[in-house]
Amino acid sequence: MDQFSPLDSQMMALAIQLAKRGQYTTSPNPNVGCVIVDKNGQIVGQGWHHQAGTPHAEVHALQQAGTLAKGATAYVTLEPCSHFGRTPPCADALIKAGVARVVAAMVDPNPLVAGQGLAKLNAAGISTAHGLQQVQAEQLNRGFIKRMQTGRPWVTVKLAASLDGKTALANGQSKWITGALARQDVQRHRARSCAILSGSGTVLADNPLLNVRYNELGLDEQTLLEKELRQPLKVVLDGRNQLTPDLQCLQSTDPSLIINSEFNPLPFFANVNQWQAPYVDNKLDLAAVFDYLGKQQLNHIWVEAGAKMAGALLQSKLIDELILYQAPKLMGNTGQDLFAIEPLTDMQQSYNLSWTDMRQIGPDLKLSAKVLYD
Amino acid sequence: MDQFSPLDSQMMALAIQLAKRGQYTTSPNPNVGCVIVDKNGQIVGQGWHHQAGTPHAEVHALQQAGTLAKGATAYVTLEPCSHFGRTPPCADALIKAGVARVVAAMVDPNPLVAGQGLAKLNAAGISTAHGLQQVQAEQLNRGFIKRMQTGRPWVTVKLAASLDGKTALANGQSKWITGALARQDVQRHRARSCAILSGSGTVLADNPLLNVRYNELGLDEQTLLEKELRQPLKVVLDGRNQLTPDLQCLQSTDPSLIINSEFNPLPFFANVNQWQAPYVDNKLDLAAVFDYLGKQQLNHIWVEAGAKMAGALLQSKLIDELILYQAPKLMGNTGQDLFAIEPLTDMQQSYNLSWTDMRQIGPDLKLSAKVLYD
Repeated sequence: MDQFSPLDSQMMALAIQLAKRGQYTTSPNPNVGCVIVDKNGQIVGQGWHHQAGTPHAEVHALQQAGTLAKGATAYVTLEPCSHFGRTPPCADALIKAGVARVVAAMVDPNPLVAGQGLAKLNAAGISTAHGLQQVQAEQLNRGFIKRMQTGRPWVTVKLAASLDGKTALANGQSKWITGALARQDVQRHRARSCAILSGSGTVLADNPLLNVRYNELGLDEQTLLEKELRQPLKVVLDGRNQLTPDLQCLQSTDPSLIINSEFNPLPFFANVNQWQAPYVDNKLDLAAVFDYLGKQQLNHIWVEAGAKMAGALLQSKLIDELILYQAPKLMGNTGQDLFAIEPLTDMQQSYNLSWTDMRQIGPDLKLSAKVLYD
Repeated sequence: MDQFSPLDSQMMALAIQLAKRGQYTTSPNPNVGCVIVDKNGQIVGQGWHHQAGTPHAEVHALQQAGTLAKGATAYVTLEPCSHFGRTPPCADALIKAGVARVVAAMVDPNPLVAGQGLAKLNAAGISTAHGLQQVQAEQLNRGFIKRMQTGRPWVTVKLAASLDGKTALANGQSKWITGALARQDVQRHRARSCAILSGSGTVLADNPLLNVRYNELGLDEQTLLEKELRQPLKVVLDGRNQLTPDLQCLQSTDPSLIINSEFNPLPFFANVNQWQAPYVDNKLDLAAVFDYLGKQQLNHIWVEAGAKMAGALLQSKLIDELILYQAPKLMGNTGQDLFAIEPLTDMQQSYNLSWTDMRQIGPDLKLSAKVLYD
């Protein structure tokens, strides 16, 4: 285990804060931050990755540091790349600038390349270390890491319910269970995700936009650079070809993807793509769906769907994380449920969760948990 | 509004901590703490009320202070009493001891006597003030205050459910949804209550003890004085006389109360009392039940019941506070619900809650909320 100083910790924490500034814009690339510190402990360069195809965090920080990078330490939240992608390798840039030491929070999660960036630096006589604030760094890029390691995206299922676990009244009414601040928080999650996924049942019932309304995010201009804003891909699962071109989420000029089992011949807009998934037991093969979405370089899927799809995803063990907005309301036993699944016959069959966060947002609770599949 | 110094605040906070030491034992009396501080700011006496029929907090503190009480300030969490109950009036004792100033967190909640204790002190030339940390003091004695003001006890409904709001599987299995620490917390709540109330449906299904297992409270000996321990009254609502003498909660030597509409002639133990409540629309009149329980000097009722009774209490607007232990589990739509109520047809009809506390207890969440009836 590498040893780190208090200055190391302070600088890596800053690099992680910088990395977060790219959270709305870097998809499909990871969020990365970089801080360069001279021998006297003075910060001489800072940077973060903004968008795929534009310079990496290290390049921004090195540009700011100029000749002051010579003999300095570079703190970077992800191992510097060693390969040519759309931009030249950052390891080469760090070597050329003459830095003396590179501290990475974590190595590259892609098993095919992990450690090669640090090895290249070492070979050039640069001291390297890694593992500082690794948990925090991993949290930044859960989707990217999962996709690199498994080929599938990170799947977060968002739900909103009353304290007694009801998402709507028996007659379907559900507006609004949660308050305006919780809905704003949902918009921010949508904006950070690579794709927003729903089912045709929900889309036909609610006719949602499934997009990001950037003016509803409540974020300042420094955080959001208008020219960098993007819309996550809208994905709708439609096993029985029930979708029609007039639905709101298929009307915009932003890209959409319908996943069905047979091509839907209706005259959809040009930006609406279709993909035919395998059909198993009269249902779309959900595992195949996420394999496909991973191949499309989607790191993090934000699912907003009804009880049927949430239950199907749970039973298929495809949910990585749940986010439940829980309103201080009671709606009673006749309301609609959160997860439609096969009846359990023993408490041991219950799905177990592990809390990852809990906080109050306006009047509502926001509970986040990983699903533990044994 | 009376003005208070930092010393006043510090001493009242201590008095409130002392008052809490009686929380398992004072029923039906309120929890009260007292601190006596001399002119130099030195604490010369501390006390709290232990049990009904034994000395009040002020008397304990005055005994400890002795002659040092002369010219001192007494901090007390509840206005000193001015009437003869089972013990002489504390106002008289404070006057006799020669204290110069009395600060009360709150006045006596009984509208017939409110302010008379302070008035008696004033008339004897003692400076008085009140309203310091009143919210905290009220929290100590919500049941006593409500009973004094309305004649009815404070009603807390305890529920335990999975994150998707299910209290049991379809087949009735529910052991254990929550963890050992949550169940210990339930024992502490039971021990602080004046009565534990359930319905015959739950009692017949689960055959619970409905008592306090003091060895399961996880409290040290300093907190619990064995000779002062008591069992809350066990109350079971049984509108259709389904209860039988062999049920566990009716077997112990601790007092129980069956509330039904007609006398149950089965040979119950002598400690099992019965009361016949009015019967309205083929149901026990729940409002009349709580009027009766208030007349029995029960301040705080802890309800552990199923969806039917929880729903009936909610619809009758009789729940003051909910405590939901929420386990990090999912049990699915076929599980049993929290509140069986008439179907709502509009979101405006949802019952609104106001959070009073949220915390993690072991792996579970404990969410507390007041029910807001408009």
